[in-house]
Amino acid sequence: MSVQPTREDKFSFGLWTIGWQAQDAFGSATRPVLDPVEAVHKLAELGAYGLTFHDDDLVPFGSDAQTRDGILAGFKKALEETGIVVPMVTTNTFSHPVFKDGAFTSNDRSVRRYALRKVLRQVDLAAELGAETFVLWGGREGAEYDAAKDINAALDRYREGLNLVAQYSEDKNYGLRFAIEPKPNEPRGDILLPTLGHAIAFTYELERPELFGINPEVGHEQMSNLNFTQGIAQALWQKKLFHIDLNGQHSVKFDQDLVFGHGDLLNAFSLVDLLENGPIGGGPKYDGPRHFDYKPSRTEDIGGVWESAKANMRMYLLLKERAQEFRADPVVQEALRASKVLELETPTLNPGETYQDLLNDKSAWEEFDVDAAGAQGYGFVKLHQLMIDHVLRAN
Amino acid sequence: MSVQPTREDKFSFGLWTIGWQAQDAFGSATRPVLDPVEAVHKLAELGAYGLTFHDDDLVPFGSDAQTRDGILAGFKKALEETGIVVPMVTTNTFSHPVFKDGAFTSNDRSVRRYALRKVLRQVDLAAELGAETFVLWGGREGAEYDAAKDINAALDRYREGLNLVAQYSEDKNYGLRFAIEPKPNEPRGDILLPTLGHAIAFTYELERPELFGINPEVGHEQMSNLNFTQGIAQALWQKKLFHIDLNGQHSVKFDQDLVFGHGDLLNAFSLVDLLENGPIGGGPKYDGPRHFDYKPSRTEDIGGVWESAKANMRMYLLLKERAQEFRADPVVQEALRASKVLELETPTLNPGETYQDLLNDKSAWEEFDVDAAGAQGYGFVKLHQLMIDHVLRAN
Amino acid sequence: MSVQPTREDKFSFGLWTIGWQAQDAFGSATRPVLDPVEAVHKLAELGAYGLTFHDDDLVPFGSDAQTRDGILAGFKKALEETGIVVPMVTTNTFSHPVFKDGAFTSNDRSVRRYALRKVLRQVDLAAELGAETFVLWGGREGAEYDAAKDINAALDRYREGLNLVAQYSEDKNYGLRFAIEPKPNEPRGDILLPTLGHAIAFTYELERPELFGINPEVGHEQMSNLNFTQGIAQALWQKKLFHIDLNGQHSVKFDQDLVFGHGDLLNAFSLVDLLENGPIGGGPKYDGPRHFDYKPSRTEDIGGVWESAKANMRMYLLLKERAQEFRADPVVQEALRASKVLELETPTLNPGETYQDLLNDKSAWEEFDVDAAGAQGYGFVKLHQLMIDHVLRAN
Amino acid sequence: MSVQPTREDKFSFGLWTIGWQAQDAFGSATRPVLDPVEAVHKLAELGAYGLTFHDDDLVPFGSDAQTRDGILAGFKKALEETGIVVPMVTTNTFSHPVFKDGAFTSNDRSVRRYALRKVLRQVDLAAELGAETFVLWGGREGAEYDAAKDINAALDRYREGLNLVAQYSEDKNYGLRFAIEPKPNEPRGDILLPTLGHAIAFTYELERPELFGINPEVGHEQMSNLNFTQGIAQALWQKKLFHIDLNGQHSVKFDQDLVFGHGDLLNAFSLVDLLENGPIGGGPKYDGPRHFDYKPSRTEDIGGVWESAKANMRMYLLLKERAQEFRADPVVQEALRASKVLELETPTLNPGETYQDLLNDKSAWEEFDVDAAGAQGYGFVKLHQLMIDHVLRAN
Repeated sequence: MSVQPTREDKFSFGLWTIGWQAQDAFGSATRPVLDPVEAVHKLAELGAYGLTFHDDDLVPFGSDAQTRDGILAGFKKALEETGIVVPMVTTNTFSHPVFKDGAFTSNDRSVRRYALRKVLRQVDLAAELGAETFVLWGGREGAEYDAAKDINAALDRYREGLNLVAQYSEDKNYGLRFAIEPKPNEPRGDILLPTLGHAIAFTYELERPELFGINPEVGHEQMSNLNFTQGIAQALWQKKLFHIDLNGQHSVKFDQDLVFGHGDLLNAFSLVDLLENGPIGGGPKYDGPRHFDYKPSRTEDIGGVWESAKANMRMYLLLKERAQEFRADPVVQEALRASKVLELETPTLNPGETYQDLLNDKSAWEEFDVDAAGAQGYGFVKLHQLMIDHVLRAN
Repeated sequence: MSVQPTREDKFSFGLWTIGWQAQDAFGSATRPVLDPVEAVHKLAELGAYGLTFHDDDLVPFGSDAQTRDGILAGFKKALEETGIVVPMVTTNTFSHPVFKDGAFTSNDRSVRRYALRKVLRQVDLAAELGAETFVLWGGREGAEYDAAKDINAALDRYREGLNLVAQYSEDKNYGLRFAIEPKPNEPRGDILLPTLGHAIAFTYELERPELFGINPEVGHEQMSNLNFTQGIAQALWQKKLFHIDLNGQHSVKFDQDLVFGHGDLLNAFSLVDLLENGPIGGGPKYDGPRHFDYKPSRTEDIGGVWESAKANMRMYLLLKERAQEFRADPVVQEALRASKVLELETPTLNPGETYQDLLNDKSAWEEFDVDAAGAQGYGFVKLHQLMIDHVLRAN
Repeated sequence: MSVQPTREDKFSFGLWTIGWQAQDAFGSATRPVLDPVEAVHKLAELGAYGLTFHDDDLVPFGSDAQTRDGILAGFKKALEETGIVVPMVTTNTFSHPVFKDGAFTSNDRSVRRYALRKVLRQVDLAAELGAETFVLWGGREGAEYDAAKDINAALDRYREGLNLVAQYSEDKNYGLRFAIEPKPNEPRGDILLPTLGHAIAFTYELERPELFGINPEVGHEQMSNLNFTQGIAQALWQKKLFHIDLNGQHSVKFDQDLVFGHGDLLNAFSLVDLLENGPIGGGPKYDGPRHFDYKPSRTEDIGGVWESAKANMRMYLLLKERAQEFRADPVVQEALRASKVLELETPTLNPGETYQDLLNDKSAWEEFDVDAAGAQGYGFVKLHQLMIDHVLRAN
Repeated sequence: MSVQPTREDKFSFGLWTIGWQAQDAFGSATRPVLDPVEAVHKLAELGAYGLTFHDDDLVPFGSDAQTRDGILAGFKKALEETGIVVPMVTTNTFSHPVFKDGAFTSNDRSVRRYALRKVLRQVDLAAELGAETFVLWGGREGAEYDAAKDINAALDRYREGLNLVAQYSEDKNYGLRFAIEPKPNEPRGDILLPTLGHAIAFTYELERPELFGINPEVGHEQMSNLNFTQGIAQALWQKKLFHIDLNGQHSVKFDQDLVFGHGDLLNAFSLVDLLENGPIGGGPKYDGPRHFDYKPSRTEDIGGVWESAKANMRMYLLLKERAQEFRADPVVQEALRASKVLELETPTLNPGETYQDLLNDKSAWEEFDVDAAGAQGYGFVKLHQLMIDHVLRAN
C-alpha cells in the first residue's frame, strides 16, 4: 500500500491552516499572506481533495461587494481547474472585536443579530459551493467570570440561533448538515459546550436534532485530557459524527494545532483504525472528509508549510496501513479472543430473556464464582504491546 | 441568617464518606470501621437530613442473609429514631476484583450478568428504604488500552443494562429515577461517559430517557478542568440534574474528594448561587438533596472526620448567605445591567420575527456599526470583583 | 486597615499589562494604544509606586534614535512628576519573528548574537532608570519537537548569555540582580526552565549564582498545577526570590493572566500571608515590589482596564488584612498547636545529638509506638476551615 | 540488533512493581503475594540484571528479627544463584499510618526521628547488598492545606534528615549516592520538591551536594505535563541524574505507572535516544540502570505480570534500535544541518571575544537583517516527521 495521498483518501484542509500567518498571543506574523488560488492548486498537487474556509479566510472582513465577487470568481475558477471540492464551510464569529463576548450568545443583543446575519450569509455561500456540512465553532461563546454570563439564557440563545439557521437552510433546500465544534477554553476562559459530550447532548434539544451533529477536533478534546478515540466512538454510536478535525496536541495546555499524529501517536493510531475499519465488533463507520485543522509551526516558512501539509496526510496513511495489518493479523485475533474483546458484542441477556429469567438463573448470582472470575487475567497488556508492535512494524 | 444546618437544608452524606478508613493507593487504613448506626445518629446530631450508601458500605460484600438482615434491621431502627432519610442509594460495582474490567461493560459476559443481579438487588433495597434516586457510578467501565475495549459494543451493553434496570423498577412501581455519575479517569485509565456532557448525551439513547439523568460531582468535572457551575447550568437546562455530589478538588490531578469549598472557592460560590437562587435571568432550579461525596483526609482521626462533615455544611451555608446578599445588592444589579447580563434573556429575534424579517433589517447588518459595538466595554472585571467582595464580605 | 493602596504597598505594574491591546491568538486588538505617559500618571493616581517595561513596550521595535530619545524624555518627565519608580526592567526577546526559535538559545547563532545585543542595550537603560532587578523571560527558548533542539547545548548557550550579561552589569557597576522568569509552555510547545524549580537549579551553574534568582508568576506555575505558595516558600528558602509576578489563573490551560486573586483565591490568600507575614515558624521574607503581570480581559475598554488595575491592588490588600487577622487569632494559634505545625521548627535531632545518639535512643525506634502515632488526628481540616473563615470573615 | 534483553542492557525492576497486588484506591487486591525469591529467578530468566526494593517490600513491616533474617538469607541466595544484582535500594516511608503526615517532614517530631531510624537501617542493608544508589521518595512529605505545613521549616527538616543520612553513609564508607525522587502530588495534595527541577535545586543547599542527585520518573514529570526528555537533559547537564524510573503515563491525571513506552511513545523515543546516544551535539550521558518503576495493570494475572515486565524491556530495545538508525541516517544528518540543530553547540561568542567586541560588531546589531533572519524556515516539522518515520520504520 502506498502512502501517497489520492483523492479517494478524502483529505481536506482549512484555508486558515496552510494560510496561517503565524501570529500568536506573544508574537507577530512570520509568514506572508497565502493566495487562496495558490492554496487550491498546491493542495491539488499534493493529493488533497478538498478545501474548507471561514468567510473571512477567503474574503477579508469588511471587503466591498466588488472585491468579494472578484475573489470568489478566482476561487471558483481554481476549484474547477483542479477538481478540488469544498465539502465544508464555516463562519468566523470570533476574530473581530465585535464578537469579544460571543456571537449567538453575546450579552449584547445587537451583536447576536449581526452574528446571525453573518452566518446566514455564509450559509448561502456554502450552498453555492456545494458544501454538505456547515461547521459552527463558537470560540467566543463563553466567559471568564461566572457572574458575567447567564448560562441558561446563553443556551436558550444558542438554540434560538441554531434553530433559525437550520430552518433557513431547510427552507432553501440547501440540504446542509450542521456540525458544532466543541472546545473547552481558549480564547475564552470557559467555552460553552466544552467537550463533544456536551455538544452532542445539546443537539437533542434543538428543533431538528437530526440536522445537528458535531465536528470534534483531536486537540480540543485532548486539552481536557479526554481519550479522543473513545469520544469519537461515542459520537459514532450516537450517529452524531458529521465531520472531524484532525491534528496533534500534547495534552492539557494551550491549543497547539500540531500535525496529525505529531502529538499522542498511539491514540492517533486507534483513531485511524476506528475511522477506517470501524468498531472491532462491527458498528457505525465514518464516511466523511479527513479534515486537517492544524497550524504549521511558527518557525516554518512556506516550504515548511507544505512539508507540514504533506506530513498530515503521510501520518494518516502510515497509520492506516498499519491498522489494516493489525486487524488482519491472526495473532492479534487470538489475543483479542483471549482478552474477550469480541465477547462484548454478545448481549448480556440471552435472546428473549427477561429480568425475571435472569433473576431465576442461579448461575448468574447464587452459584457464580466471583473469586474465580476476579482472578482471571484479561491479557490487556499483551494485546496493547501487539498493537504497538504493529504501529512500529516490529516483528 | 444562621450557618447552623437544619433538615430543611437537605444535607446528605454518603456512608462511605464519613466511613472511609483512609486506605489509599500508597498506604493502609488509618481509621477503624465506623458503625453505620453510629453514623446515622451522629449525622442527625450535626443537622444532616439524609444518608446514602452502596450495598457493600452497609452490608459487607459476601455477608450471609442473616448478617444482612441483622444489619438492615439495626440501620432502619436508627433511621426511625433519628428521622434521617435515605434519599439516594447506589451499588458498588467497582471494588471487588470481579469488576476489574467493569460491570455492565465487562468483556466477560458472566460478570455483566452478575453485575445486573447485584444492581437489581440493590434497587429492591432502594425502594424498600424509600429512596427516590438510584445513582450509578461505573467506575470500572472503561479501559487503559484502546484495543482492549470495543467502545461501540460497550455502549450497547451499558444501554442494555440500564434499560433492564429501569424496566424492572417501573414494573415494580418503585418510582425511582436513575442518575449516572460521570468521571473521566481513575481507577481506569479512561472511563466511559467521562464528563457530564457525555453522560447526558448518552441518556437520550435509552428507552426511557426521562428516567435517566445525572449525578455530577464537583471534583470529577474539575479533574478535566471543566467549569462545574457552567456544567450544572447545562444539566439544569437539559432537565437532567437528578442529584449532585458536592466536594472539593484542586483541578487536574488525582481524585481528591476534599470538603466542599476547600478547592476552588469562587466556583463553589457560583455553584451555590445557582443551586439556591437559580439562573440570574430565571430558569430551572434544583430541588434535590445537597449531597456531600468527599473523603475526610487521611491525616484525621474520628474527631477530624466529624469536623470535616461539619465543614462541608458550613461552607455551603456560608456561601448561600453571601449568594443571597449578592443577588439583593443594588450595586450588583447595576453592574449586571451595565454588563448586559440580563439582556441575554431577551430573544435575539423580535416576537414573531422571521429570518426574512431579520434579513430585511438593515440595522442588523448593513447599517450596524461593528466597530462601535466592538469597542464597548462589558465591565466584566468590575462585576467579578463585586462578586468576590460579596464572597469576602468586603465593603 | 484600609484597602486603599499607597506607595508603601510597593505595587507595580508592567506597562504591557494595562497597555495590552487585547489581540490574542484568535482575534484582533479591541483597544487602542495606551500612551506610556498617561499610564504613569494614572498609575500614580491609583496608588501604585512602580512601573516596569520591556524595551519594545516603551519604544516600538525598530524606532530610530530620535524617536527613542523623544519617548524616553517624555517618560522620564512623567516619572519625575509622579514619583513613580522603575524597580524592574526587562527585554522583549519573543515577539519579533527573528526570535521565533528563541533568543539566547536560537539554533541560529546570528540571532543569539543579536539577542545579546538587544539585552545589553536594555541593561543600560535599566541602570539609567535606577532599576534594581532585570527580568529575563525566555518565552521562545524551547521547542515543539524533541529533535529540533539540543537541550544540553541550549543550556550551555543560556548560561553563556547570562554570564555575559551579568559580567557586563558588574563591570559597569550597575548593581543589577537578574531574575529568570519560568514558564512551562506557550508560546513554545515546551519552554526551557519550565518551573521555578528548574530555574533555581539552573542558577547554581552560573558564574555568579548570587546575582541570579527568579521572577515566578502565579499563573505560570499553576499552568503545571503546582502549588504556587509552596513554590514561593522554596524560592525564599533558597534565597532566590528576587521579584514576583502576581496574577490569576484557572489551573492547567492557556496562560490567562487574570487579575490577582481572581483565580485560586485560597492559594492567593496563603501567598499574601507568606509574603507579608513570612513563614509561620519564622524565616526569610520577601521585601521587593508586589508586581502585577496580568492582562485586562479582552472584553474591557479603557475604563475596564483601570478597574482591573484597581482590582489587583484591592485583592492583595483584602487578603493582607485577613492574613494579619488570621495570624493574630488565638483560636488559630491553638489550632496550629494542635496540628503540631509549629513543632516542625524544632530540629529532629536534639542539640548536639549525633546519629549514633539517635541509634542508641530506644524511644525513637525499639520502643516507639507506631500504631499510636499513626492513629493520632492532625486536625488539618479544622485548621483549614479556620483559615477559610478568616478569608471570608465568617464568625 | 536483537530486542532480546541481556544483562548488558542493565534492566532492573522494583520488587514492588511485579509484586504489586493491584489494590488501588477504589478496589481490593486482585493478585496473590509474589515470593521475592521467585521474582529474582523469573527476572533473571527474562534477561533483567537487577532488582530493587523498599525495606517493606522484602521484609513485611513489623517482622521480628528471625523472620527478617530468614527472608534476607533466602533472598541473597537467590541473588547468588542468578547473578541478579541490587543496584539500588529505597525505604518505604509512606505506607504505614505513622507516616500519614510525612516522614522527614512530619509535623510530629517523634515520627521524624522514627523515620530517620528506618532509613538508616535500610542504608545499612543497601550497603550490605552492594547497592550504589539509595533512592528517597518522600511520597507523604507534603500537605493538602497551605496552613497545615510550614514549608520553610519542612525544607529545613528535609535538609537535616538528608545531611544526617549522608554523613552516616560517608562515615561508614558505604560509598552510596542518594537520589531524590520528585512527584507533584498523590498521595498528598501537594508534595514537596514536586518536579525534578525543584529537587535538583534543593540538592545545592545540602552539606554534600555532590552526593545528592535525583531519580526522576517518567510519569511523575508527565503528571505536570512537563517534557520528560527535556527534564532529563537538564538533569544530565547539571550532573544530577543518578538513577531513572521508566514507565508510562497519559499526561495530567492520577499516577498510572504503565509500561514504559505505553504512554507518550514519541517522548519515550527521544528519551531512549538521549540515554543511549547522548545529546546530539555531544555532552554528558547516563550510565546507570534502566530501572522500570511501573505497575502491571489490575486486570492482569501473574501471566500478565510477566508479559508486562517483558513489554517494558521490549519497548526500550525497540526504541533503542530505531534511535541508532535515526542517528546514523544521512538524510537525518542533512535535516539537522538544515534546521541548524548542531549550530547550537557553537558558542555565541567567538573564541576570546568579549562583550566589548560584541558591542563593536556591527554585523550583530546595526547591520543585522532581522527581517531576513525572521523569515527563514527552520524545517522543524520535516525533521520531526523524519524522526517519526524512523520510529515507525516507514520508508
